[in-house]
Amino acid sequence: MERIVIICGTNRNDSVSMEIAGIYKSLLEELGQAAVIIDLKDLPSDFTTSALYENSGKNEKFNEFRELMSEAKKFVFVVPEYNGSFPGVLKAFIDGLKFPDTFTDKKCALVGVSSGVQGAGLALSHLTDIFNYCGTNVLALKPKLAQIDRHLEGGRITNDLYNTLLKDQAKKLVDF
Amino acid sequence: MERIVIICGTNRNDSVSMEIAGIYKSLLEELGQAAVIIDLKDLPSDFTTSALYENSGKNEKFNEFRELMSEAKKFVFVVPEYNGSFPGVLKAFIDGLKFPDTFTDKKCALVGVSSGVQGAGLALSHLTDIFNYCGTNVLALKPKLAQIDRHLEGGRITNDLYNTLLKDQAKKLVDF
Amino acid sequence: MERIVIICGTNRNDSVSMEIAGIYKSLLEELGQAAVIIDLKDLPSDFTTSALYENSGKNEKFNEFRELMSEAKKFVFVVPEYNGSFPGVLKAFIDGLKFPDTFTDKKCALVGVSSGVQGAGLALSHLTDIFNYCGTNVLALKPKLAQIDRHLEGGRITNDLYNTLLKDQAKKLVDF
Amino acid sequence: MERIVIICGTNRNDSVSMEIAGIYKSLLEELGQAAVIIDLKDLPSDFTTSALYENSGKNEKFNEFRELMSEAKKFVFVVPEYNGSFPGVLKAFIDGLKFPDTFTDKKCALVGVSSGVQGAGLALSHLTDIFNYCGTNVLALKPKLAQIDRHLEGGRITNDLYNTLLKDQAKKLVDF
Repeated sequence: MERIVIICGTNRNDSVSMEIAGIYKSLLEELGQAAVIIDLKDLPSDFTTSALYENSGKNEKFNEFRELMSEAKKFVFVVPEYNGSFPGVLKAFIDGLKFPDTFTDKKCALVGVSSGVQGAGLALSHLTDIFNYCGTNVLALKPKLAQIDRHLEGGRITNDLYNTLLKDQAKKLVDF
Repeated sequence: MERIVIICGTNRNDSVSMEIAGIYKSLLEELGQAAVIIDLKDLPSDFTTSALYENSGKNEKFNEFRELMSEAKKFVFVVPEYNGSFPGVLKAFIDGLKFPDTFTDKKCALVGVSSGVQGAGLALSHLTDIFNYCGTNVLALKPKLAQIDRHLEGGRITNDLYNTLLKDQAKKLVDF
Repeated sequence: MERIVIICGTNRNDSVSMEIAGIYKSLLEELGQAAVIIDLKDLPSDFTTSALYENSGKNEKFNEFRELMSEAKKFVFVVPEYNGSFPGVLKAFIDGLKFPDTFTDKKCALVGVSSGVQGAGLALSHLTDIFNYCGTNVLALKPKLAQIDRHLEGGRITNDLYNTLLKDQAKKLVDF
Repeated sequence: MERIVIICGTNRNDSVSMEIAGIYKSLLEELGQAAVIIDLKDLPSDFTTSALYENSGKNEKFNEFRELMSEAKKFVFVVPEYNGSFPGVLKAFIDGLKFPDTFTDKKCALVGVSSGVQGAGLALSHLTDIFNYCGTNVLALKPKLAQIDRHLEGGRITNDLYNTLLKDQAKKLVDF
C-alpha cells in the first residue's frame, strides 16, 4: 500500500506542528492507511544553497526527502502561521523538489496551525495556489487550528471540533 | 537622507532579479534617492537554522542584513516566480527579521519577474498579504515583468511598457 | 447520467465567456458527458434584492438556476476578469444558492478568460478560496485564456495550447 | 475639506456592517474628518443589468453613488464575510464605477466583519488584490471583527481591542 507523506511544515525544534503531524499519523493508521512523517527540522542546514537551482538533486541527505515526496501519491501538510503565511523554509523545501513529477495529478490535504486567532488561513490559501500551480489537487476541507496552545494537552487535541475536522479530513483524503 | 533598501528576492547565482535590482537602483538614483541592494545569495548558507526562531538575532553575518532592514523606512522587493509564488528563501529571510519593528508603518514596492507569462502575479498577491500582516503598506502599482528573457539585453530592459511602469513605481515610492 | 453544469460567469450580453462555455459543452459531450449551460445574463434583473438573504429561495425564476446547481455534482465556471478578479454578479449568484448543500463534497473546474495578459489568474485564486470554503473541491488545472480576442475566431479557439489545456481539464473533471 | 466615503459592503437590510459604518463615521468625525456613508442597500434593485458594461453611467440613481466615489480621495470599506469572501453585490458595485478615475492613486481602508471566527480575512485579501489592480493604495492595518455579535451592543463595540484597532486605522487613514 502506498504511504501518505505527512510534512511538518517548519524546521523549528520541538514544534507544535510536529505534534499535530504525529496525531495525524495516528488518525490515518486508524483508517488502515500507512503514513510517514517528514520533519523539516531534519533537512540539511545548508539546503537552501546546496539543494536548489543548479544544485537540485545533488545533496544526498536532501535527496532522501526528495525521493519520499516523489514516490508518494498523497500528502498532508501541517502548516504553522509565520508572519501571516507559511514558513519560508516550507516553500524552500518545495523549491528543491523534482518538478513537475513530484506534484502532477497528486492529492494533498492542508492543516493550519496558529497560536493566534487566524489558524493560518492565508497560509493555506497561498499554499493552495502553489500546489494547484504545480498540478496537485487540494482537498477543500482545510482545518484551521487557531489558538492551538489552548487546545493541545499531553500530545492530544482537547477541542472536539478540531478532532472532528481532522478525522473528516483524513477520511476524505484516503477516499480522494 | 534615508536609503531605500532593494532586496533581490532569490539566492540563485547571477539571477535576473539581481539585474533588475541594479536597474531599479539606477532609477532611484536618477530621482535623487539613495539606495542599497541586498542580494539574498549573500545570506549565510545555514541561515535557516542559525538565524531563525530561538536563534533569531544570533548570526552575525545575517545580522548585517537584519540591521539594514531595521533601519530603512522603504523597501523594494524584486520577486521572481518560483512554483507559482515567491522563492521560499525570500520568506525565510523575512522570518529572520526583527518583528514587528522592521515592518511597522513602513512602505514597500513590489516587482514581479518571470520567464513565463504570469509575471509572478500570485507571488505579489501573497507577499502583499504578508507585508500588510506585518504592518507595511504596499504600493498599489506592482509591475509584472513577464517573459523577462525577451525584454532584457545587455543589462537594460528593452520593453517600453516595463520601463515606464518601473519609473512610475520608483517615483510613487519616493513620494509614498 | 448526471449532467455537469457549466456557468458562464458574467451577465454581459454576447459575452466571450458564453462562447467558451459553448465550446466547453462540446468538449464534454465528445467525452460522452452530458452538460447544461447557465448564462448569468438570464438571471432576473433584480435578483440581488429579490433572491438573497431573507429572500433566499423566494424568487421563482432564480430558483430554476438554484435547482440546477443543487442537483449537479460537478461544475465548470468560465470566469472573465473584471477589475482584477471575477465579476461581482458571479459571486452574487453564488450568494443566492442553497448553502451548504449546493457545494458540499462537490467538484468543479475553473477557466479564466481575459482580454489582457493575466488570464484572470487572481480571479481563479479568489474563487478557489470561495469554493474550498464552501466545501467544493477545485481541480488543480485551471486554464488561463489570456488575450482571448486574438485566439477566438468563428466560435473556435485557434490557440493549440488553449485547446489542449481545455481538453485535458475536461477529461480530468470527468474522472475527478 | 474632502469627505471620506464609507461603503457599507452589503445590500442586506439592517446589516451589522451598516452599524459599523456609523461607528466609523463617528471615529472620523472625532478626528475632525468629514465622512459620508454609502449603504449598498440603496442601490437600484436592477443595477446589475442597468448600470454595468454597455449601460455603465446610464442609471441616474446609480450615478449618484458613482459620483460620490469619483470625487472622493479616500474610502473605507466595511466588508462582511459571505461564503468565504466579500458579498458579490460589493464587487458588482465596484464593476459599475468609472474606471480607472475612481481608483487611480486613491487610498482606502478595509474593515472585515463576520459572525464566525475568521473576521473576513480572505475577503480583505481578495479586495486588496482588486483595489491594488485598480490603482488604489490599501492601508496595511485591516481590522478583522470576528464574532461580531458578541462584541456589539446598543450600537457600540464592546471589545477594547476592536475599538483600538478601528481608532488606529481611522487615524492612519486620515494621515495616509
